[in-house]
Amino acid sequence: VLGPDSVVLLLQNGLGNEECASRVVDARRILGGVAFVCLNRTAPGEVRHTAFGYLKADCFSPGGDPESIERVRQAFLRAGVGFHRAESLPYLKWEKLVWNVPFNGLSASFGGVDTLSILEHAPSKRLAGELMQEVIDAARSQSIRLDPKLVSDNLEKTLSMGPYRTSMCLDRLARRPLEAESIVGEPLRRAERKGVSLPRMQALYAHLSFYNRTAGFVEKADSRVYPNQENDS
Amino acid sequence: VLGPDSVVLLLQNGLGNEECASRVVDARRILGGVAFVCLNRTAPGEVRHTAFGYLKADCFSPGGDPESIERVRQAFLRAGVGFHRAESLPYLKWEKLVWNVPFNGLSASFGGVDTLSILEHAPSKRLAGELMQEVIDAARSQSIRLDPKLVSDNLEKTLSMGPYRTSMCLDRLARRPLEAESIVGEPLRRAERKGVSLPRMQALYAHLSFYNRTAGFVEKADSRVYPNQENDS
Repeated sequence: VLGPDSVVLLLQNGLGNEECASRVVDARRILGGVAFVCLNRTAPGEVRHTAFGYLKADCFSPGGDPESIERVRQAFLRAGVGFHRAESLPYLKWEKLVWNVPFNGLSASFGGVDTLSILEHAPSKRLAGELMQEVIDAARSQSIRLDPKLVSDNLEKTLSMGPYRTSMCLDRLARRPLEAESIVGEPLRRAERKGVSLPRMQALYAHLSFYNRTAGFVEKADSRVYPNQENDS
Repeated sequence: VLGPDSVVLLLQNGLGNEECASRVVDARRILGGVAFVCLNRTAPGEVRHTAFGYLKADCFSPGGDPESIERVRQAFLRAGVGFHRAESLPYLKWEKLVWNVPFNGLSASFGGVDTLSILEHAPSKRLAGELMQEVIDAARSQSIRLDPKLVSDNLEKTLSMGPYRTSMCLDRLARRPLEAESIVGEPLRRAERKGVSLPRMQALYAHLSFYNRTAGFVEKADSRVYPNQENDS
């Protein structure tokens, strides 16, 4: 289905998704990015947008064509959606993980709860902040220097979002597989390979992957989820 | 209801229970202990005993009468129940916490699961062992030196117990309040007051106390649980 000039834009949280896609698509055609937006899919083809709203993306491979990102940017701008070229895709991914790890992770591991209820419970708010610091430590092991102020900024920004239900919260409530590998497992493994200890992320990963296993979802290390199938790779 | 020679024997896991009882009973009459036994209360007045089976206890207060522990010991022995006087009640309590924190804690925070399923999931087994090490670190901050071999011993012993449902697992399944304070919160606070960081126990405490709060159980810092009441002390 790819034309000669087609590109593939992945807007997925977590790490390892572009690597996975590069097994079936030329890496130079892959764009990776993240969305800074609060929305929920409420029905097939229906999206409820609640706060914020822009995209950041860049070519996945150094061999990618900068022209392609510009074409995609123009298309989004024509559609009225904010779009910025990221200065560094790895930086962008890790920056977003600072929010995703605590809020997606805890909202699911706590059984499907909103972000405000986490922030209104002192021990859980503390844990969220400490998980953010662990993500910053993990990023540093990958030569990504994130601003330590991201911790307080993210806590404040999230408070302003009200009782937001993260995507992993909704997955948990609907008993769908949780994105344990790309959002927690893969960042954790990359940091641990560099000798960095991340106890809270490890505990969170144990929790989320335990859920996936007992719910009958087997995740592959490459972040793809195959419900009820044996993991044979 | 206490006669002149009556004593009060508390067989409760965790920390802070004897202190709590000493507000209504002379501390010198209080005996504290723990049960090394696998059993579940299956109905009022009905107990299913599955493995192990003896008690260890000692006077709570240095002013307690050693004769009283001997009287209680004889009573249990007459009933066919093993009973040993503990050499040190604080040591005994912390030693038992090495098992209780990971297995009661995770079995409840994972939504009500048995001990074998935790041990069969590699990241969760690792987390259980690391939680045990944190309890040993916490005990050291209270001048209690536990054998590091307790980690591997407890993992092996628990494997031999099969798919055991801990008391906190059963509480979670029945949507009863979880003993978050006495089993995790109080040990955590005592160690943190000594400057010891216990990230996995803190994460576990956040999880269990979040559950109690959202389930409508308000726990007092003294470990007593009052369902659906305001915490006004």
